[in-house]
Amino acid sequence: MIDVSTAVDFSRGADGLLPVIAQDAENDRVLMMAWMNEDALRETLATGQAVYYSRSRKSLWRKGETSGHRQRVKEIRVDCDRDTILLRVEQTGAACHEGYESCFFRSVDPQDASLTVVDPRLVDPKEVYGK
Amino acid sequence: MIDVSTAVDFSRGADGLLPVIAQDAENDRVLMMAWMNEDALRETLATGQAVYYSRSRKSLWRKGETSGHRQRVKEIRVDCDRDTILLRVEQTGAACHEGYESCFFRSVDPQDASLTVVDPRLVDPKEVYGK
Repeated sequence: MIDVSTAVDFSRGADGLLPVIAQDAENDRVLMMAWMNEDALRETLATGQAVYYSRSRKSLWRKGETSGHRQRVKEIRVDCDRDTILLRVEQTGAACHEGYESCFFRSVDPQDASLTVVDPRLVDPKEVYGK
Repeated sequence: MIDVSTAVDFSRGADGLLPVIAQDAENDRVLMMAWMNEDALRETLATGQAVYYSRSRKSLWRKGETSGHRQRVKEIRVDCDRDTILLRVEQTGAACHEGYESCFFRSVDPQDASLTVVDPRLVDPKEVYGK
């Protein structure tokens, strides 16, 4: 089993979880922010597919398992403190469960902090998740 | 004072802190990951300069106050859960305190999780911080 401790310092995260940023390797869009524990990083390295840790479900979250909207990992980077991970990915479909390319589909107005949807919806979440 | 609660749900973060991703608005590089509390977001909105919350110093961190490497905020986005903030910024100098454009200057080898510096150093940290 790969020792990931030289690459990433999981002791710096609360409950052994560290923030992970997923960025589209092709157009450089920031797609989403999620969390990894050590097992998630190990499985990501071994499979080449993004695997996160779901804080709500308290288990590994193999991105795209339900939706098919997987993330093939092209490159992994770590920050200067080795406590944040950046995944550069090839995104299938939409990264966001609401059907947008990126979870960051809303802009904040600096005047009144109101939100505006600024991206087009790519897919209908009902069709993907059957809700 | 601006009510930011419609834009961002700070109750979702431990200790009222939420992760913030800073991305260069010009070349789309992910520069760094930091944290904000409500006051940091309010001051960011009011001044147009990135203000974070330093978890180590337990106080507001006006990015670039010491180094001059400020971040002028061009756009603020929030994610679908309203618990992660994306700042698109105009970065002066280097975002990373180690003198790199981005804190994510090291790549992880998927075979053995070893790290390789893959970016050039832009500035000498000693000259910026006088260490």
